[in-house]
Formats: sequence, C-alpha cells, structure tokens
Amino acid sequence: MNGLYLEDFFVGQRFSAGGLRIDADDIKRFAAEFDPQPFHLDEKAAAESFFGGLAASGWHTAAITMRLMVEGALPIAGGIIGAGGEELRWLRPVRPGDVLSVQTEVIEVIPAPPGKRFGRLKVRITTLNQKNEAVQVSVGHILAPMRSRTPPPDRGDLSDERSMGRTS
Amino acid sequence: MNGLYLEDFFVGQRFSAGGLRIDADDIKRFAAEFDPQPFHLDEKAAAESFFGGLAASGWHTAAITMRLMVEGALPIAGGIIGAGGEELRWLRPVRPGDVLSVQTEVIEVIPAPPGKRFGRLKVRITTLNQKNEAVQVSVGHILAPMRSRTPPPDRGDLSDERSMGRTS
Repeated sequence: MNGLYLEDFFVGQRFSAGGLRIDADDIKRFAAEFDPQPFHLDEKAAAESFFGGLAASGWHTAAITMRLMVEGALPIAGGIIGAGGEELRWLRPVRPGDVLSVQTEVIEVIPAPPGKRFGRLKVRITTLNQKNEAVQVSVGHILAPMRSRTPPPDRGDLSDERSMGRTS
Repeated sequence: MNGLYLEDFFVGQRFSAGGLRIDADDIKRFAAEFDPQPFHLDEKAAAESFFGGLAASGWHTAAITMRLMVEGALPIAGGIIGAGGEELRWLRPVRPGDVLSVQTEVIEVIPAPPGKRFGRLKVRITTLNQKNEAVQVSVGHILAPMRSRTPPPDRGDLSDERSMGRTS
C-alpha cells in the first residue's frame, strides 16, 4: 500500500497487520537489555511471581506493536513519526509462543497549523494475541504530512530507494 | 536501596538513575528489529528526513527509560510492574552519543482495594539527555505491594538470590 497523506485519513478508518510470534528467547533477550527483572528473565522466578509464568516486558509488547505498525498497521507517507500518546495500558501478559497482531482505528484527524506541513492523527492502537485477546491498548498521536503542502517528488519527503521496511 | 512498599511512598517523593549512553549502532540495532524506518537506520536517509539526522526510535527511548527505572529510578519491593500510563510524549530526538538519565516523582499513591495486595503509584517519569533536556515525559501507573498485606519472608514476594538487576 502506498503511504497516505493527512487528507487521505478519516475518522473510523482501520488498518491492521499481524503474525509476529514472540518466543521465550525473545522475551529474555529484550528483558536482559531493557527490563532485567526475574519475571521477564527466568521461568522459575516468573512462575513464583505476580505473572505466574514468563511474561514479556510491556515495553517489548510496545516495541513489537511499533514493528507491526511499520509493517502496515498505519501506512503514512514518509513513515510513522510518533509525537507520543495519551494512553497506554497492558491488559494481560504476553507469553512465549504468542502471535501478535495490531489493529488501528483513526479517531481524530488534525490538520497542520498554517504554514506547517505536518498535521496529526489520533489513532487507537490495539495489540492482540492469537486468541484475539487485547494485550495492549493505546492512543497514539502520529504526525502525517499534508499532500497539499508537500513539495513535488524528488525533494522534501522521505521516499527513496532505501525505503525497505517502510510503510509507503 | 531496598525495595519500598506502597506505605513507604508519598506524593512529591523523587528518585533518579542515569548514565546510560546510546550509540549509533544501538539505535540501528533496535530499529532493525522494532522500528525499521530509514531515519532510524541510515545516517544519510536520516539527514534528509524530518529528524535531520539519525534519531533513536521513541520506543527505544522508552525501553531505556524502563532500564533506568529498574536500575534505581523506582525502587519498588518485588520489582516494577507497570499497568500502563496516561501520557507519553517525545519532546526531542535522542541522538547517537546521548547519555540518558531518568527522574521520577510520585504524584499519587492509591491503596489496594479491600482484600488485594497491590495498590498503585502514579509517577511522573522524565527522561533527560546529557544537556539536561527532557527527551521523553510520561505518567506511569505502577503496581506496588502493601507491606501490611504481604506474607512473611520466604513466600509471596519475588525476592530471592536470582534477583540480579532488580531494584530491591
């Protein structure tokens, strides 16, 4: 799908991407670098913890969610540039072997201020496991360029042949 | 510092941890796995992008923030278990060579419901670069056990000799 400009988005519009599996080794590797707590690192310690078994760091789930957005769950021209979010909740643990998908829904489209190129989208982002249970919900504020203020091709946007992995 | 229980926290209480340096290779490695967009992967593409140079994924900054919280910026008994947050904003790019620190401030202490062990803290979390500029701000909702409802040692909490990397 080609990348979309702000003018292409509307409230209620939905996108999705999925099929990313997370295994125990992924959980432990992420945790060792960013969230080194026993319930993310060691099955036995995790079994005795609040989580009752090995669980991914919430920030790992958030990072995988971003990956799936780049893979198609939010196809913005020039890529996905987040300004932040107003909500982020982890609803249930992500376990080894879970296969995650992401569904997005546009909930607000905010044009760029006068003279600026980037407006904003508010997007509800739901991360689901293979049982279709929500594991994370968030509302993201994402920049989106206005087509009407984007210079003609070959300058000013990010598209070029190095765009592997981009959404557009 | 030993881990603190809900009863030990008060509004206005502050903690900090710091000294985590992020280099271009770290930025690219995280991005390749979780946020594969040109402005996080390639200096030349980044120079031509919105960011004007290589910048870390916001989710990388968030993950490093968690690491620093585990290293001391929020010393909760049994570890840091986040339920989510109500705000997350990236204020400026994180660049290669930046050295990040985290400051936290308790803004609300919510006792556990009757019969439950875990209450909640609301914590303002600010991630700073080496120029003391805020790069990320968030408000996290973090579980904290009540001492008065915690079973005696040797059962029910997470502490044991595998606790390397924990905050308590």
